[in-house]
Amino acid sequence: MRADLYRLTATEILTKVQDGEVSVEDYASSLLKRIEARDDAVQAWAYLDPAYVIEQAKALDAIPKSERGPLHGVAVAVKDVIFTKDMPTQFNSPVYTDHAPKVDAGSIMVLRQAGALILGKTTTTEFAATTIGPKTRNPHDPKRTPGGSSSGSGAAVGDFQAPIGLGTQTGGSTIRPGSYNGIYALKPTWNAITREGQKIYSLILDTLGLYARSVEDLELLADTFMIYDDAPALQNFSVKGAKFATLKTMVWPSVGPGTSAAIDKATTLLRENGAEVEEITLPDHLDDLPAWHAVVLASEGRTAFLPEYAVAKDKISPQLVGHVENSDRISRKAQVEAFDKISAARPVVDEILSKYDAVITPSVPDEAPLGIEKTGSAAFCLIWTALHTPVVNVPGFKGENGMPIGLSLVAPRYHDRRLLAVSKKVGEVFEKEGGWTRSI
Amino acid sequence: MRADLYRLTATEILTKVQDGEVSVEDYASSLLKRIEARDDAVQAWAYLDPAYVIEQAKALDAIPKSERGPLHGVAVAVKDVIFTKDMPTQFNSPVYTDHAPKVDAGSIMVLRQAGALILGKTTTTEFAATTIGPKTRNPHDPKRTPGGSSSGSGAAVGDFQAPIGLGTQTGGSTIRPGSYNGIYALKPTWNAITREGQKIYSLILDTLGLYARSVEDLELLADTFMIYDDAPALQNFSVKGAKFATLKTMVWPSVGPGTSAAIDKATTLLRENGAEVEEITLPDHLDDLPAWHAVVLASEGRTAFLPEYAVAKDKISPQLVGHVENSDRISRKAQVEAFDKISAARPVVDEILSKYDAVITPSVPDEAPLGIEKTGSAAFCLIWTALHTPVVNVPGFKGENGMPIGLSLVAPRYHDRRLLAVSKKVGEVFEKEGGWTRSI
Repeated sequence: MRADLYRLTATEILTKVQDGEVSVEDYASSLLKRIEARDDAVQAWAYLDPAYVIEQAKALDAIPKSERGPLHGVAVAVKDVIFTKDMPTQFNSPVYTDHAPKVDAGSIMVLRQAGALILGKTTTTEFAATTIGPKTRNPHDPKRTPGGSSSGSGAAVGDFQAPIGLGTQTGGSTIRPGSYNGIYALKPTWNAITREGQKIYSLILDTLGLYARSVEDLELLADTFMIYDDAPALQNFSVKGAKFATLKTMVWPSVGPGTSAAIDKATTLLRENGAEVEEITLPDHLDDLPAWHAVVLASEGRTAFLPEYAVAKDKISPQLVGHVENSDRISRKAQVEAFDKISAARPVVDEILSKYDAVITPSVPDEAPLGIEKTGSAAFCLIWTALHTPVVNVPGFKGENGMPIGLSLVAPRYHDRRLLAVSKKVGEVFEKEGGWTRSI
Repeated sequence: MRADLYRLTATEILTKVQDGEVSVEDYASSLLKRIEARDDAVQAWAYLDPAYVIEQAKALDAIPKSERGPLHGVAVAVKDVIFTKDMPTQFNSPVYTDHAPKVDAGSIMVLRQAGALILGKTTTTEFAATTIGPKTRNPHDPKRTPGGSSSGSGAAVGDFQAPIGLGTQTGGSTIRPGSYNGIYALKPTWNAITREGQKIYSLILDTLGLYARSVEDLELLADTFMIYDDAPALQNFSVKGAKFATLKTMVWPSVGPGTSAAIDKATTLLRENGAEVEEITLPDHLDDLPAWHAVVLASEGRTAFLPEYAVAKDKISPQLVGHVENSDRISRKAQVEAFDKISAARPVVDEILSKYDAVITPSVPDEAPLGIEKTGSAAFCLIWTALHTPVVNVPGFKGENGMPIGLSLVAPRYHDRRLLAVSKKVGEVFEKEGGWTRSI
């Protein structure tokens, strides 16, 4: 058995398992050794039972070749806000300590049926709703946050403890850890993947998100979840001759030097590789998108956290108590207006995005900040969550302290597959020439 | 012990329990006897354990008076698409036979914390998604459907087997059984009550619904779920001097004689009672609302039922297989356009509704049809589900075969409490003078 199996992508390990070169058990053992070696430093897991992982791996190995699914043996790290029938789901909340309903989320049903090996549950901020960090540390610098709220899934995939991770995003909870941990992240079009069995914060914002270390792996998952565009898969996309735009958005004043430099470098690299790159802006009437997002978030949180408030108000964070008690005094009129204005913005922004192969915009203000108490800013992500567009974080750049920085590629709703195809080629450029290389 | 306790509304039994006149156990026994007597004829329950109900009732009786919640002892029938930690949740699907995850839906957490007695689980169409009736029969005529998909909750409340029922609505699944069973039904503003732990069909359409035999009971539930308008509760509303509109909508050609007569009679009665009643129409550009609803429903069903399709395609109905396989060939472009057009319609319709104390529109084409194979038409309900407005079914009228017919009162989003206050007074008129009286 090769000791470094854990470093392979999902696509790579699939081939080896299919060829009979490697057993799922060997692969799982390699991942478990990696986790054992690194867990003190990274602490990505809320729940992991190595013996059970091996038991599951053996069961997968016992399945006849003809009956194996398209993800046979692919290991998946699952954010601990998504139900798993055989592991606890605790939401990083004392209200749910040892909470273990015997039910799989819809996403987990699909993954298991495809042959995935569910490794364990990864850390999250409380209910994926706050920015107070869990115990997890950034694998590239343990003094820094891995981001949140999908802290553990982002760190685990970034640290080679799993090839695939499930996250969620309501503000920037998938894309931000993607950037901080130097990995690819897909926030698909809203509701392109079922959210059944995933804790609700905001129905109109919450989106299941995916982590991997290659775009091929994200495409594998998109196949599994049957995410299809209207157009057939884009073949032979080339950066040469492609048309991009950079978009600094209304929150650009909060950008740091790392992301600012990354946008400049991305523009230069894409042009050097033969692409056209414009700089565009959104119409002024959309300047309040972040404010509308905040209103919708708090108002829908008012509904979402009433159960926990009713049962154990003293055990949920003041932010969530504030939502339920409507401490911001958001009127229903303001709630409905914000909801409707975001709705009206969606086709307007889709139309703008449709003119380019992808629109490139910051994922985060800068590299992962020092400290694990706070998980960083979602400022650059949240408008895309509200707009329901697919977003891919593409890594490749670095900040002033050598930490990874990614950029977001954005496309109109339900152009997820086109966006992945474009991101693959752009990723080759950014990863090769962007300046950041993995040191772990 | 009074043998007819089962006939009381929730508000009435609460007073008796609070006064110490009746124990929760006595009340539960009375309901169980009613159920025993009527279950062969009505068959409203998917799961009911009488011994466990009594055990829970005794536990409620043991709670000191000072620690009792605002729904102490109120019995609730729960549609079997909503998770209950102590009872199976089977969705009327062979994929989920004996499925019993140990988790409460958010709505159930709130109700239990308030002291409600969860009686059992009521029948539903498969996943609350088809119109193929379960075993349940209309309590007013066992040869007729109780409607669906909230068949069991509607029938149980209509038949005095429970004072309160939980339903859900994606097309017309709460309001239709409300009309067919001669009871009050509230489909609140979308997302005013958490849908956590309730099976997903369409995220943007699915709404938890409430049944009762009085508006006071619906107000009690609205208090429990903290559903508040911007304006304080409407005091002293009077039909005299009020302003209503009737709205036949674009699906009026599908109306039957019963509902047509009910609309006419409602107009006459309200005018006789001193109200102004106009007849209004929706703008022509909204004529396709039902078509947009159908597109959104099928497209979101494509996502929602992938898990069951992946696991056991042969055990789900052809309609749901069709959603997942997109057998209607709905493009993503059409999906997004329908989603956006409905979104744009919401503020337009809210503005129209805001000019009246309530807009009165059919709940159903006519009285409950013969046969239990099909649950009837959602044609008149589904635009309101899409528009996210609150709707109250108010009973009081009767069809050519003496079956109950209700009418829908509609208000702008988040005017649920105002609508309930108006519905209470309108209900007094309709129930007294509309022509239908309960014979059970």
